Amino acid sequence: MNRANPLTLLLGVAHPVLLAPMAGVSGGALARAVSRAGGLGLIGGGYGDAGWLEEQLVMCAGERFGVGFITWALHRQPRLLSRALDSGAQAIMLSFGDIAPFAGPIRDADAVLIAQVQTVAQARGAVAAGAQIIVAQGGEAGGHGGLRGTIALVPAVVDAVSPVPVIAAGGIADGRGLAAALMLGAAGVLCGTAFYAAIESIADPRAKQRVLEASGDDTVKSEVFDLVRALDWPDGPWGLRSLRNGFSERWANDVSGLRSVLDEEQQRYGLSREQGDFDTAAVIAGEAVDLVHAIAPAADILLSLVDRCREAFASAP
Amino acid sequence: MNRANPLTLLLGVAHPVLLAPMAGVSGGALARAVSRAGGLGLIGGGYGDAGWLEEQLVMCAGERFGVGFITWALHRQPRLLSRALDSGAQAIMLSFGDIAPFAGPIRDADAVLIAQVQTVAQARGAVAAGAQIIVAQGGEAGGHGGLRGTIALVPAVVDAVSPVPVIAAGGIADGRGLAAALMLGAAGVLCGTAFYAAIESIADPRAKQRVLEASGDDTVKSEVFDLVRALDWPDGPWGLRSLRNGFSERWANDVSGLRSVLDEEQQRYGLSREQGDFDTAAVIAGEAVDLVHAIAPAADILLSLVDRCREAFASAP
Repeated sequence: MNRANPLTLLLGVAHPVLLAPMAGVSGGALARAVSRAGGLGLIGGGYGDAGWLEEQLVMCAGERFGVGFITWALHRQPRLLSRALDSGAQAIMLSFGDIAPFAGPIRDADAVLIAQVQTVAQARGAVAAGAQIIVAQGGEAGGHGGLRGTIALVPAVVDAVSPVPVIAAGGIADGRGLAAALMLGAAGVLCGTAFYAAIESIADPRAKQRVLEASGDDTVKSEVFDLVRALDWPDGPWGLRSLRNGFSERWANDVSGLRSVLDEEQQRYGLSREQGDFDTAAVIAGEAVDLVHAIAPAADILLSLVDRCREAFASAP
Repeated sequence: MNRANPLTLLLGVAHPVLLAPMAGVSGGALARAVSRAGGLGLIGGGYGDAGWLEEQLVMCAGERFGVGFITWALHRQPRLLSRALDSGAQAIMLSFGDIAPFAGPIRDADAVLIAQVQTVAQARGAVAAGAQIIVAQGGEAGGHGGLRGTIALVPAVVDAVSPVPVIAAGGIADGRGLAAALMLGAAGVLCGTAFYAAIESIADPRAKQRVLEASGDDTVKSEVFDLVRALDWPDGPWGLRSLRNGFSERWANDVSGLRSVLDEEQQRYGLSREQGDFDTAAVIAGEAVDLVHAIAPAADILLSLVDRCREAFASAP
């Protein structure tokens, strides 16, 4: 994976592997570990907690790193972008919303604007709005995402935006997925679930354990966890993918029922997060959980991903 | 693609590419053309029209070919399996239902039992029931299918059923997808949408034209076309993926409304099929439509798929 491509040159990385900026998982320690191992770590800026973000930025000081934001949430707190850029973020990844207002400031800071999209049409729009790298995210991904699958979306986006580098995301957690993504025409991959159970991940240890034990068969896309977390997502096909658990089984097919007892369920849900009860609280991971088998240092995860990709190519017909 | 693997040995094919047995698309002529070009053509046995199937079997006489059935429909007409086997089908592919009762007759006829599955758990069950090849079908596929995406499902199924050969299906329509599937550990691919617009396909020319013009962004999974076609699918997450059109836009979010005027809409729908009005009638194709650009002979489609796969490997890092 050491052959330079437009992506590795643009980001200055040895390996074309990016850490997905998972809210509540990808803190500064995980981002730093992925970057030090030769990939690019992206801090999960999420919905925008300024104090928390500040602490993560400090952990990455002097390191190559990036920050990912939920675009519609960044619109409400645009100063978080300045903080990330002032702290030395070399890349900003924006997902779910209009990126145009942020393209100028990111360019002025000599940072790279990475736009995550879920359709071919969005990819074209993001490039027109100034994105320098496109993440084509299939619905296999954990967390919010679209309805298209990675294996068909990536080559279509490559055809639509070439020569802009495209990164494949969604359902990729080992070297086989990295090799497949490169064959699809992607210049690299963005992995979330692969790093969920990393030692440096700030996910709850009990949630990590559930990821180790789950199958991709056991994930589900639903709006119920956004509802109970009072997250005000704009309309769109952005169902959140998470592991199936007692809460999703109870409510995913009865959203109006959940609405009718929402106050009560929100209180119960808040408590479950404090107590680490993940039969209620969401474990936000994707279909690639089948491929995650151990709690390990992020560097080991990344290097084993790269090694297995090399093996896959070495045994290609 | 000429290096033998367990799949090509088992099926006696030069290229690890199978034609999906698409109902109303994969007739005998298309199956024969794919087989003659070095892949394996599967006739789309669909819901079981005995007279029609007989004609297709005659077209494949003396050729290497297979037949695909919808398993729950075959339970209602098991004699169709005998007809396929008596006509020399070397492979039978079963999808959506309990394959166990058919494993014995297929084995006794020295044919290969291919089971298409949509989850890791189903893959294990199919092998236990006697399947010799597993098709791991991602939800990107046109027609009925599950909810998992190909890129995460395939390696998980490979890990679960190895050394049984696994074929990747869903979202694969060019050599990049074939190369990606092989990197994921698949022994080959099953392609439907790639061959939808083949000259030998029996799809309506106006439907083929829509496939050429559509993007994968324009496909949708819905139950409305099954409802209006009075197809009695068993319960399960088997949403039919098709191109979005006027009919799906009108009813996909108002299924109970459709039920309330079903008789009328069924009459109108029947008429639309006769008239080739594909703003009402379904064009059953998958997310890979982005990659289909021309009406061409099936042999050209297959060979270009194999050539582009070789190119992808040749340029691998």
